[in-house]
Amino acid sequence: MASTRVTIQDLADRLGLSKFSVSRALSGKPGVAESTRSRVLQAARAMGYRAHAETAHPVGQILFVRSEVDPVSSELWFNIMQGAEIEAERLGYSVVPRQARYLTGAANLDPSVVGLILAVPRPADIAEIAARSGVPVVCASYVEPLVRFDHVVGADWESGVAVARMLTGLGHRHVAFIHGSSLPLGRLERFRGFKDGMLETPGSVVEDIVYDEAGGFRRPFLAYLRNGGTPTAVFCAHDGIAVSAVSELLRMGLRIPEDVSVVGYSDFACATQISPHLTTVRTPQTEMGAAMVRCIADRLALPENRSRAPVRMALASEIVRRASTGPAGNPPWQTLVPTLGALA
Amino acid sequence: MASTRVTIQDLADRLGLSKFSVSRALSGKPGVAESTRSRVLQAARAMGYRAHAETAHPVGQILFVRSEVDPVSSELWFNIMQGAEIEAERLGYSVVPRQARYLTGAANLDPSVVGLILAVPRPADIAEIAARSGVPVVCASYVEPLVRFDHVVGADWESGVAVARMLTGLGHRHVAFIHGSSLPLGRLERFRGFKDGMLETPGSVVEDIVYDEAGGFRRPFLAYLRNGGTPTAVFCAHDGIAVSAVSELLRMGLRIPEDVSVVGYSDFACATQISPHLTTVRTPQTEMGAAMVRCIADRLALPENRSRAPVRMALASEIVRRASTGPAGNPPWQTLVPTLGALA
Repeated sequence: MASTRVTIQDLADRLGLSKFSVSRALSGKPGVAESTRSRVLQAARAMGYRAHAETAHPVGQILFVRSEVDPVSSELWFNIMQGAEIEAERLGYSVVPRQARYLTGAANLDPSVVGLILAVPRPADIAEIAARSGVPVVCASYVEPLVRFDHVVGADWESGVAVARMLTGLGHRHVAFIHGSSLPLGRLERFRGFKDGMLETPGSVVEDIVYDEAGGFRRPFLAYLRNGGTPTAVFCAHDGIAVSAVSELLRMGLRIPEDVSVVGYSDFACATQISPHLTTVRTPQTEMGAAMVRCIADRLALPENRSRAPVRMALASEIVRRASTGPAGNPPWQTLVPTLGALA
Repeated sequence: MASTRVTIQDLADRLGLSKFSVSRALSGKPGVAESTRSRVLQAARAMGYRAHAETAHPVGQILFVRSEVDPVSSELWFNIMQGAEIEAERLGYSVVPRQARYLTGAANLDPSVVGLILAVPRPADIAEIAARSGVPVVCASYVEPLVRFDHVVGADWESGVAVARMLTGLGHRHVAFIHGSSLPLGRLERFRGFKDGMLETPGSVVEDIVYDEAGGFRRPFLAYLRNGGTPTAVFCAHDGIAVSAVSELLRMGLRIPEDVSVVGYSDFACATQISPHLTTVRTPQTEMGAAMVRCIADRLALPENRSRAPVRMALASEIVRRASTGPAGNPPWQTLVPTLGALA
């Protein structure tokens, strides 16, 4: 590639136009015909013209760094990215999605990169390289203690408390939290809040069921029932697990919510595709993305902001009550368990 | 902002380093200490240094243009964008997500924009402005006849044929296609293929049921049964509708697949969250995104490629057989319909 910079004069010479016309065409200002503007833009691209700061769009790039597709949460990441993108446009930045291996592979980042959003399950894996970049970094999940990045997450603990209070208000006293075999900090916090909220009501029992997606729902659920579990409600770590729970319970012949109430988490599209529609916790996903961009913009605003204390931001959710929850019932677990044994 | 360009000499002066060291630090080449590199990069950012072509990362931007979040298909768009992003990195471009209103609002695009992917439901709405941009445009859905953009879609018609053949192979002769009230061209093509495939087997009956998400599944399905529908299998326009169908049919007391087979479309995460797991059509979503980027890269490769005939590319899908389909049963519609009337 040529290392000499293409100037407005070069474009004017090539096109037989005045510098004034070329400049106005490039900056989008009035005073040139649309056909002229189009010719100038085409020539600018063909000749590799790069705008100066005073005419170019702001090009500060915020990299949205992620690892492979996680199908369970792709809706979450999509919404977070959407929120980040809209806020970035408002503030004059661009959000550019990048695979984590781009960071680890690059000797250094392009100087147009002004910030990093780490939207990966384990930010610790790329923490060192992100820190070395010298730009503000914000994580979309809990950072390790004392790490000097900002993070923006959902207010998990209080979501758990709120779900518990809703269920005790409906008379539920024996409930279970259903989650995967790995329990990231956010889900652990939700479970802790759920227990804390249930224990506000004396005599409550909170258990948990480890659901391995590869192994399916039925086996761990039956094992739990055989061990004496008699829940009237289950709280699922995400709406996908709630979809599994609802359909498996229906196949066992149970009614929802008359026999068992089911609560999800995230308010994904499947929450209103399954029948009955899921009561769930709606996390402010697009607002989380916007908040991440603002964290970066705040630190860029003044040099001294760079060294401010790392921010741990949590955004409160809301409960969306739909048809999958109701007053505590009396599910026929005793009569059901022997029957289900044959199916397991 | 200053309009004078910051040079490598400026950085060297400021930092008390040689131009050679600054240049090597900026280009990521060996020969400078890590601490020096870090100082140089920080100063480059602080002083607004913009790299020349020979040291910068390629900055050709491909805008991934979309309108608001469509929750039903966010997984699809996420996967397409992921595929586009990975291919773009391989070819030296950046994928930058942008709201459609950014296009309509900008007087002209930044010269670093080299291509547009229109990932919006109705590309016709922004076709004119996209065409005026002068860069290659590729659509993620069917373009209007004769429009001079490329498009990359799924091979919808043949997916429909393949689903029909699978079902007739299992003995199904009376089937229904369940779709929303608007029928975009892709879904219409799928339905056409489904009919064509069923009609290969004499005596087959193919009907369609219009499912309005706001109104729910039960009412239109009952209306269809009352009008004499006696399907042994249903093919749903996307997996979200299939999740509704499975759970509603389970609540009616039907068994899947013994009484009714259900086929979805897209292979979203919910396909393996619902029980039984969905037989569905897996569209090559990440490959579609990669193909869109290659369409743009091909046109950028040589000036004469710009005027090549517009490409209509369709990528073939595959059927993923899971537990929601089986041999044609004998669903008890006659006895069921009067009972269900009370529930409607």
